[in-house]
Amino acid sequence: MDVIEETTAKGVTERRVDLRVGEEIVPAMIWTPEGADGPRPTVLIGHGGTQHKQAPNVVAMARRFVRHLGYAAVATDAPGHGDRIVDPAMAELARKNLEARLAGDTSGRLAVPDRDPEAMRAMVSRSRQGTKEWSAVLDQLVELPEIGNGPFGYWGVSMGTSIGLPFVAADSRITAAVLGLNGLSDRPGQEAFGDAARSLTVPILFMFQWDDELMTRQSGLDLFDAIGSEDKSMVIHPGGHVGTPLYERDLYESFYVRHLGTV
Amino acid sequence: MDVIEETTAKGVTERRVDLRVGEEIVPAMIWTPEGADGPRPTVLIGHGGTQHKQAPNVVAMARRFVRHLGYAAVATDAPGHGDRIVDPAMAELARKNLEARLAGDTSGRLAVPDRDPEAMRAMVSRSRQGTKEWSAVLDQLVELPEIGNGPFGYWGVSMGTSIGLPFVAADSRITAAVLGLNGLSDRPGQEAFGDAARSLTVPILFMFQWDDELMTRQSGLDLFDAIGSEDKSMVIHPGGHVGTPLYERDLYESFYVRHLGTV
Repeated sequence: MDVIEETTAKGVTERRVDLRVGEEIVPAMIWTPEGADGPRPTVLIGHGGTQHKQAPNVVAMARRFVRHLGYAAVATDAPGHGDRIVDPAMAELARKNLEARLAGDTSGRLAVPDRDPEAMRAMVSRSRQGTKEWSAVLDQLVELPEIGNGPFGYWGVSMGTSIGLPFVAADSRITAAVLGLNGLSDRPGQEAFGDAARSLTVPILFMFQWDDELMTRQSGLDLFDAIGSEDKSMVIHPGGHVGTPLYERDLYESFYVRHLGTV
Repeated sequence: MDVIEETTAKGVTERRVDLRVGEEIVPAMIWTPEGADGPRPTVLIGHGGTQHKQAPNVVAMARRFVRHLGYAAVATDAPGHGDRIVDPAMAELARKNLEARLAGDTSGRLAVPDRDPEAMRAMVSRSRQGTKEWSAVLDQLVELPEIGNGPFGYWGVSMGTSIGLPFVAADSRITAAVLGLNGLSDRPGQEAFGDAARSLTVPILFMFQWDDELMTRQSGLDLFDAIGSEDKSMVIHPGGHVGTPLYERDLYESFYVRHLGTV
């Protein structure tokens, strides 16, 4: 793990690190309480499509988990995102969405990539890569004394669920997860995704938007149904894909406290 | 308002009162912080079918609102319930359900009244009476200096929604409500119920059980859809009618704090 930069502000130490996973460099952020020196509950945050490891909502949530709960939080750039963008069209979408958000756009709508078959295949392939990376990232995180053996939670909606749900299903170190803004459909790769959902056993908080322009209500209900965990709940709000109210961050916190405990 | 009994324990003053509404005596409980002497946010609690104003979950929630938030809480016996039971069959159902609960039954199942046409008509008529009573009860509560002009929230699921939803829709003094365990169907009286749901404008937190033996998933989703409020959310858990996890009381609290404020 190469530490690229480290800063501390308002009690939160923020490290920009590079992790090596096979041939890939995975850029990541690690947030910990200032002076943290022992293992603690840690939330891995998987950003959404066109976002990255320092998207405003990722950073805001990570700092909250550190300041309110004394947890650690970790975010990576998913394949093809953030510092790993290689496709100019993705860069343009990322710019558009960030611009709309910073301009105070509250429509809840998101600019998304083309959905032609080739683009979809590339997306599925990137998601599979992202799923594999998380376990390798976690292997390296447990070596940090201020993270250690956790326990670990995962937070990721939309693409963060496409990538994170199979990761949570496969890696028994994750003991609770917030997922959402995703569904079961007939898209490529969805059979394996459904199988992963059915194999989940850890507590799941599933967030969904009732007027999501990217997926049908039924696909979301089907995914919630498929989730195998006995302890699961689905929280539905009206509005578009990125319209989940910010106050639900309180809900994520109480969910993690219930399952990962306090420091 | 006749005060029948008053006790104080652990900082919570509990009054058993009789209110007069037309020809009816409405027995009620009022919980306030010990020594409370000014207006404060107040939650009106409508119990479920076969329950009453001092059912264990009603009392537990009321005391929480007082101890955690400094709020007042009020519960009444709905028509035909609690001290107002006139039907021996209802008394037997109430006994059965309480017994199962006290014995630690976690099946989430509830013994319910017969659903023959005459019994259904009587239930609808009792619910209408209960709806009217709440506004008359509130008229009397605002006279208490320790409650005053609130603001007021409502909490009631199952029969507490059958009775409470039309009350919340009709009485503009209620500015936020937790509803749930109810749906839109073709039962008698459902047209007016749907109209009331569509006319709602205040924030609504709608709780639902995904395997509710008393109503279909679709009826619950239809009721959530019908609710006219812009600020609404639906929280779904697996399990039967009375299986909502107790930890969701934290959610009710944060909902009321958001909308009724703090003391």
